[in-house]
Amino acid sequence: MDIESTAQDKAGFFVGTWGRVKAKVISTAKSIKQLGQNDPRRLTHSLKVGLALTLVSLLYYARPIYDGFGESGMWAVLTVMVVFEFTVGGTLSKTINRGFATFLAGALGLGADYFASFFGKNGEPIVLGILVFLLAAAATFSRFFPKIKARYDYGVMIFILTFSLVAVSGYRVNELVVLAHQRLSTIIMGGAACMLISIFVCPVWAGEDLHKAVSSNLEKLATYLEGFGSVYFQSSEKDGNGNGKSFPQGYKSILNSKSSEESLANFARWEPGHGRFRLHHPWKHYLKIGALARQCAYQIEAINGCIVSDDIQASDEFKSKIQGSCTRMSAECGKALKALATSMKTMADPYSSANSYVENSKVAMKDFKFALKAASLENADLAAILPAATVGSILVEIVKCVEKISEAVHELSQVAHFEKKTVEATVSPEKPPQLLHRGIIQPVVDADSNDNVVITVHEIIVTDSPEDGMPIDQNQVPKPGKKWM
Amino acid sequence: MDIESTAQDKAGFFVGTWGRVKAKVISTAKSIKQLGQNDPRRLTHSLKVGLALTLVSLLYYARPIYDGFGESGMWAVLTVMVVFEFTVGGTLSKTINRGFATFLAGALGLGADYFASFFGKNGEPIVLGILVFLLAAAATFSRFFPKIKARYDYGVMIFILTFSLVAVSGYRVNELVVLAHQRLSTIIMGGAACMLISIFVCPVWAGEDLHKAVSSNLEKLATYLEGFGSVYFQSSEKDGNGNGKSFPQGYKSILNSKSSEESLANFARWEPGHGRFRLHHPWKHYLKIGALARQCAYQIEAINGCIVSDDIQASDEFKSKIQGSCTRMSAECGKALKALATSMKTMADPYSSANSYVENSKVAMKDFKFALKAASLENADLAAILPAATVGSILVEIVKCVEKISEAVHELSQVAHFEKKTVEATVSPEKPPQLLHRGIIQPVVDADSNDNVVITVHEIIVTDSPEDGMPIDQNQVPKPGKKWM
Repeated sequence: MDIESTAQDKAGFFVGTWGRVKAKVISTAKSIKQLGQNDPRRLTHSLKVGLALTLVSLLYYARPIYDGFGESGMWAVLTVMVVFEFTVGGTLSKTINRGFATFLAGALGLGADYFASFFGKNGEPIVLGILVFLLAAAATFSRFFPKIKARYDYGVMIFILTFSLVAVSGYRVNELVVLAHQRLSTIIMGGAACMLISIFVCPVWAGEDLHKAVSSNLEKLATYLEGFGSVYFQSSEKDGNGNGKSFPQGYKSILNSKSSEESLANFARWEPGHGRFRLHHPWKHYLKIGALARQCAYQIEAINGCIVSDDIQASDEFKSKIQGSCTRMSAECGKALKALATSMKTMADPYSSANSYVENSKVAMKDFKFALKAASLENADLAAILPAATVGSILVEIVKCVEKISEAVHELSQVAHFEKKTVEATVSPEKPPQLLHRGIIQPVVDADSNDNVVITVHEIIVTDSPEDGMPIDQNQVPKPGKKWM
Repeated sequence: MDIESTAQDKAGFFVGTWGRVKAKVISTAKSIKQLGQNDPRRLTHSLKVGLALTLVSLLYYARPIYDGFGESGMWAVLTVMVVFEFTVGGTLSKTINRGFATFLAGALGLGADYFASFFGKNGEPIVLGILVFLLAAAATFSRFFPKIKARYDYGVMIFILTFSLVAVSGYRVNELVVLAHQRLSTIIMGGAACMLISIFVCPVWAGEDLHKAVSSNLEKLATYLEGFGSVYFQSSEKDGNGNGKSFPQGYKSILNSKSSEESLANFARWEPGHGRFRLHHPWKHYLKIGALARQCAYQIEAINGCIVSDDIQASDEFKSKIQGSCTRMSAECGKALKALATSMKTMADPYSSANSYVENSKVAMKDFKFALKAASLENADLAAILPAATVGSILVEIVKCVEKISEAVHELSQVAHFEKKTVEATVSPEKPPQLLHRGIIQPVVDADSNDNVVITVHEIIVTDSPEDGMPIDQNQVPKPGKKWM
């Protein structure tokens, strides 16, 4: 009996453990599947790395055939592993850095060896030690320079490494030359395999990613702004204030987009022309648009803060007074951003459609100010008015920010030579909305006004770029006083 | 004559070139000096890398003495170069990752070699190729998991590398064991040199850096808020609106602090106890405080946007009405943040001083609402009122945000066992300000109320942490309804 129950316990234990293990396996499998579905290029990338490594490894394995490489074949494997990055730009930057650094440091190392040999058997290690110390310290320090860090960090590391290896290898110079030749050729072999596979097998271009990331950020802002008015004002009719409303939270990812955008822009510089991008595509301009989009996202975050706060009961009467203008401000901003995003995606000149939306939003801004003036005469309880009024006045800031974004995208379209085709059909499938009832500017499509747009845009090209990483100072951006059409 | 003038031209050219070169050299030297002065630890770090590399290189050079290592000595040099990071945590994480990954992958590689040997001379390379491909692809894919990416990215890379090298080396197993032993011991040697030097020679602790970064972020916010009221309201008396005012811009660096804080927290996990930090110091809590500080910085950015905008003339009369309460709101928030920052820096329990400032700021918030009510009866031009009122209502949001920060720091002080000494003297050297004239809560210093604080704080510990990278959802943070004292 006792034995039986123990056996049962044991069986139960195993069944329980098995169940847990099974659940764990299933959940892991699910998260793996999710990861692959979110971005199928991850799967492709993994297979590409496997392919490159297998090719190079087998070359190394088949050493007898390529006997020239000897032990150095190992370096090809090593190179593949450290050089293969997710994007083409990343791979190219690392490969080129590695190649040049190895060559340069190898030559310098040979020189150091030769130089040290003058100091005799005892002096040699001391001189070599000092040289390695000085060069390693100086090169390590140089890695703290932001520009070197961004572009040549890996190269400097490989430089120090190779120099030390060659300088203290203890081989004689003629042996070293053979060794260096072997290593360099295997590194080139590994690097070439990586470059070829990363460029020709389902390439992931950093530039294209940056292009998509920035335009999709504009779209996220647009989604928030387009829906904002109706959500904020509609549900407030039910519960009296802003609680429990669900606004799209997609814009939150923009708040911390700076570092990823910068690294993509750094990689994009190394990429050859691809698809619709030429070799010297103005990637820096994307950083500027990205910085402005973040600025806009900060404002939205502030609006969100105001909406969530629940201690002041908003006056519905006042809200209904500013509802029209606020809804239009945010909706027109949203449409402008969507048009700009589409124009970026299709690489078509933003044309006049985005401008007309911007103009409409500015008209709505004036309407908002009129509504304020009208409201103030009747309505006395400022505390009840303030929450909605604050939202409105942050929306005014957003209108200004969107205007700057529009200028920046126009500028990009100039510098990057976006196509100047009639994009009305693709850019703004919607009709000018029925909501608008005062001073609406219809999108202008005739060729003359086109040219005007081009010229005007050309005037306001600004030279500062947000390269130093700080969000653009609002004072430095040209004031939106120019006529757009 | 002609020849003479050519010679003069040439001399002029050389002098000009020399001048340019000299200017360039001087400017480079200046920027190097600047870089070193900004953070002298950079210089120390460079010297440390030089030292480690020289030591290990000379060991490699003196191969005849340590003949056991043979060619593998090279791996010690390589290890130093790739493993030595700026912070102790970075170095430890990479060294431990590298050690474990090499050991594991070496063992697996041996197994793969043994397994493949069953398939005969022709089958072996095919089986090995398939194994390398599968393992490399799977391991590369695993690097996309955020958790693995954050902690074991380098380990996975070394794992793939070592496995490929060992599996396809073509050596027989008994040779391989000798080789693996040599490599592992040289890697351990290089790693040990790095770890020892990075821990014992002027160590840079990631944890301490994170601690300082977060508390100095709070200080930056405090600096802005403490000075805000006087700058905003004073100079407005001159030019009528917010243009041309100089607010401290230090807070801008907080906007993009997320990635650096996260990487520091990741490294800090690997560090042993150091200075005032125990082994399992709650580094995650710093990320939470950091996220709240960013939230506050977004609000300040929104205020800055409102101040810069120049199209609405603010009403000076209204401004003077809310001046007192707004100035106090921001000043008390600033003091609270400064007290919290000091408490973090000294690792002393924030005690009641920060609480009293928070309470004062909440009193000022109520004053602001009273001022609004009072103003609304007399003042009719809403458009003129709105800019200042918006600033005020964003300040209200900041008060709420500061309260959350205060809660988070209290929580940290609980979890990290900050000292509960009487810190009044160090934390708040200033007297309760003369400005406050309504309902001020004096800092409570007797022991009983202390205990109360501790208990209350314990109640509101929240379990969500901003680990997934999104700024904390305001809905998830417990509502500030609890009494603090």
